[in-house]
Amino acid sequence: MNISILTIGDEICIGQIINTNAAWISSECALIGANIVAHSVVGDHIPTILSEFHRLLNLSDVLLITGGLGPTHDDRTKDALCQFLNDNLVFHQSTFDYLQQFFQSKGLDFTIRQQSQAFLPSKCQVLPNNQGTAPGILFNLPQNQTIVSMPGVPFEMKFIMRNSVLPILTQKMSGDGFVAHKTLLTGGIGEGNLADLVGNPDDFLQNSSLAFLPFPGGVRLRISTKANSQFLASIELNRIEKLLRERIGYVIYGQDDDNLASALGKLLINQHKTISVAESCTGGLLGGALTDMPGSSNYFIGGVDVYSYEAKSKILNIPLQIIQEDGAVSRRVAELLAQNCKILFSTDVALSITGIAGPSGGTIDKPVGTVWIGYADNENLLALKFNFGNSREINRLRSVNSALTLALKKLTKSV
Amino acid sequence: MNISILTIGDEICIGQIINTNAAWISSECALIGANIVAHSVVGDHIPTILSEFHRLLNLSDVLLITGGLGPTHDDRTKDALCQFLNDNLVFHQSTFDYLQQFFQSKGLDFTIRQQSQAFLPSKCQVLPNNQGTAPGILFNLPQNQTIVSMPGVPFEMKFIMRNSVLPILTQKMSGDGFVAHKTLLTGGIGEGNLADLVGNPDDFLQNSSLAFLPFPGGVRLRISTKANSQFLASIELNRIEKLLRERIGYVIYGQDDDNLASALGKLLINQHKTISVAESCTGGLLGGALTDMPGSSNYFIGGVDVYSYEAKSKILNIPLQIIQEDGAVSRRVAELLAQNCKILFSTDVALSITGIAGPSGGTIDKPVGTVWIGYADNENLLALKFNFGNSREINRLRSVNSALTLALKKLTKSV
Repeated sequence: MNISILTIGDEICIGQIINTNAAWISSECALIGANIVAHSVVGDHIPTILSEFHRLLNLSDVLLITGGLGPTHDDRTKDALCQFLNDNLVFHQSTFDYLQQFFQSKGLDFTIRQQSQAFLPSKCQVLPNNQGTAPGILFNLPQNQTIVSMPGVPFEMKFIMRNSVLPILTQKMSGDGFVAHKTLLTGGIGEGNLADLVGNPDDFLQNSSLAFLPFPGGVRLRISTKANSQFLASIELNRIEKLLRERIGYVIYGQDDDNLASALGKLLINQHKTISVAESCTGGLLGGALTDMPGSSNYFIGGVDVYSYEAKSKILNIPLQIIQEDGAVSRRVAELLAQNCKILFSTDVALSITGIAGPSGGTIDKPVGTVWIGYADNENLLALKFNFGNSREINRLRSVNSALTLALKKLTKSV
Repeated sequence: MNISILTIGDEICIGQIINTNAAWISSECALIGANIVAHSVVGDHIPTILSEFHRLLNLSDVLLITGGLGPTHDDRTKDALCQFLNDNLVFHQSTFDYLQQFFQSKGLDFTIRQQSQAFLPSKCQVLPNNQGTAPGILFNLPQNQTIVSMPGVPFEMKFIMRNSVLPILTQKMSGDGFVAHKTLLTGGIGEGNLADLVGNPDDFLQNSSLAFLPFPGGVRLRISTKANSQFLASIELNRIEKLLRERIGYVIYGQDDDNLASALGKLLINQHKTISVAESCTGGLLGGALTDMPGSSNYFIGGVDVYSYEAKSKILNIPLQIIQEDGAVSRRVAELLAQNCKILFSTDVALSITGIAGPSGGTIDKPVGTVWIGYADNENLLALKFNFGNSREINRLRSVNSALTLALKKLTKSV
């Protein structure tokens, strides 16, 4: 099944907003095994919209549209659909009732402008939107083609995709075979080295495929397979996963939706351990990542951002003499930060980060991108040196992910 | 001048990568006054690429292409361009020399595969890429149309855009008049309220335009104007800026590339003040935002992530009795966190955040999204209560931005 994605809106076209919707829709559709043939973005201009409807329906079985469904004068999608399909807007009672209740419950006026959202094309199927006002609308065309139009607000679009569109598309595709995926999360290894360890995928993939999806500090490996049944697909996924785990199991820390922080969180919960962090150049990002997951209070006790020498010295008792001798970015300081952080918060594990994020502060001995990461638990105290690069943003992200990977590595070995 | 943007690559089409390039290119082109008419994404498939060349050149004067320029078998853009323009690849000595030096300096093999990148279409103008291997290529077509093809790696594309493409486009547009922009950063006010305070833009804009660009916790206002000279454009921008500052000056905290954290950083530097932070539900994100800016060590001394009751009590001396009486999310705790953080780090200013980010932890009295933000300086100690919403991610972001806005508000009044 071929799918095209059309995003309608001046604000996307002129770059005010990044088109995250198209990427999200694409990856969800790829997960059910659909083939995405094109994305397109056009402004709120009916002739251009109509010509894109024609073009994209020539390329695809399904056209998914986002944007231009709101109640203001620059929302043109419903008009364009009516022109394209020779349809007209009619009053839709259950949408009206929903909208009335929506505005009343928020104590807002249900204005004429808002009421206009209850007028919908006569030929459409209405897809409820419990997250906002404009519902999604779906048209079944001759030759088994489908058009779906959804609001551009990401969480509204996602609600309609999850609750209406993806189930419908999955059913449409049921004759095409069953598609299944498994993602393995690796950390602390680059794409090239990982590819060398994995070996030539053609030797073991058969009808499946393997995607390397790098992020700063690690790589996601996504296995995709297609089979005649869910059972056969899962057998094939398990075969490839087992083979990959034999080759690279020691750098695999999670799967599917896991990220390094959530994987570490799960591990800490399983081992009934707590963690604290001492950060310098990341200024709180490691704590921010660890507390991104709901329920992180089960293992994250606290952290300190010891950005200045005074803070390092006063709060974590790092002797100024050591900072003067070795520098704040050094093994001794990283180890002491982790050790004393662990004591301060009375945790089982502590991580520390001290580095030169840049753009200034680098020297010949310690160029920008030099980062020491410390780790302390009840048996271990160590620090590792990394050399990242020139980008402050990437240096901070890779520092956080390298610290998480170090803790994952030590804690999985200690089980 | 009408511009289309074509992104080529399976990895964008299937949603593995979000198309940030198109948004960045659009906004840069909008800044020089160009009109972006379409974005399009297609996979690495020559017939589809050729049909997009045709379609987009019918819509636009300039076609900007990213992706598909690398040295592997799935990079098809050069082949497609040669087919489209009836051209062929020829050896390009200076690109070869650059590539040879590039690989040698990194101690990497300069393989046959890499050498193939020195073969470029005979009719193109080469746009140097000092950040990577594949150079940009530009074709001048009849009727003053232009095609530019650039690598898909964002920082390589940006280098070529900044150093070659934008200057060329600016020159092409010189007959169209001079375009200028000014962005004003507001905080602590929603889009609707801000629009009411600004009034009807048609009453004062004349030939300019005003865009409201909301983010969690504030709104950017972008004024755009077009005039016959830079001087006239700047007079018009100043007129509108003055009018806006009269109406909403008290919520304007920065301009152009400023964000709330960098605006606060500049203010602290100007006032020779230091800051520290105590965070609970944001777990380090406020410190992370404040240290995102190079040079933040001039004002940011440190922070504590007091996620647990024990950390609040032990590190910032919050009596457990107060936590039991008022709850950790309360005015008294927020004020004490700010006050004691200020003392711990010996800073001029301290901010605190304590709230219920969700999804769990809410009660009827304190639903998810309830956040107290505390502020302390040498004269003031206060805390404000906010009610954000249901999304953990948005609650954390809005907490950070509301804390930054509170400090900006107090410090600008105290000047």
